[in-house]
Amino acid sequence: MKILGRHLIVELVGCHRPTLDNLEQLEKYLKESVRQSGATIVESVFHRYNPQGVSGVIVIAESHISIHTWPEYGYAAVDFFTCGETVDPYKAYEYIKRNLQAQDAHLTELKRGLPSSTNEIIDHKPKINMENIAVITK
Amino acid sequence: MKILGRHLIVELVGCHRPTLDNLEQLEKYLKESVRQSGATIVESVFHRYNPQGVSGVIVIAESHISIHTWPEYGYAAVDFFTCGETVDPYKAYEYIKRNLQAQDAHLTELKRGLPSSTNEIIDHKPKINMENIAVITK
Repeated sequence: MKILGRHLIVELVGCHRPTLDNLEQLEKYLKESVRQSGATIVESVFHRYNPQGVSGVIVIAESHISIHTWPEYGYAAVDFFTCGETVDPYKAYEYIKRNLQAQDAHLTELKRGLPSSTNEIIDHKPKINMENIAVITK
Repeated sequence: MKILGRHLIVELVGCHRPTLDNLEQLEKYLKESVRQSGATIVESVFHRYNPQGVSGVIVIAESHISIHTWPEYGYAAVDFFTCGETVDPYKAYEYIKRNLQAQDAHLTELKRGLPSSTNEIIDHKPKINMENIAVITK
């Protein structure tokens, strides 16, 4: 595979349930996890569901980090998709796992990129232009 | 595993390169793919990079759909993460694959949910409250 990025697919269980239902707290934690990983925040969108649960996605210059929470199960599905050698998605993962007080975690790392018979790392997206952001709400 | 959702991890290659660099077209295609899947759009965020490439995420009531494009490689990394039995992520996948004119695709389906010794499908997030949306830009 011609590898452009790493994608950590994470199931966090036994988390602190009130935190899983707190949009502001979750957004703060995810943004800090991006900084811990060395990635660059482009944009952040969070939504709280009724009666419970939060979905949040932070688009980063190196792809995205997302979270979907089910406070009723103490569960969060978290993705850390990052490109480039300077970003460490495991630092974001460890930070989120710790701050959600997860009792257990299941992590799968996938390589993202172009299917190929050879394995090589190729350049990811160039530097972003922060002047060019579009936010569209339904 | 106590299954809450399905996550399609998709690598699309040999795509129509101008489309991969067209934010408006990609957003239109992703929104239509959500409709094709039977999911509900909550919010959409797209960003075009300089000099090329687009990242887009649509938060849906049933989780999210994301795309990151590398026009220089004719490649797009697309995720379709959906919950609930009424949504078919494969319909969104087929629609995007067709409209990006992908010559080849690599798809991995992951089940998302709580690790467990038994396999069972449990209820996902309840109905959304569209009055309660937060958009936060860095």
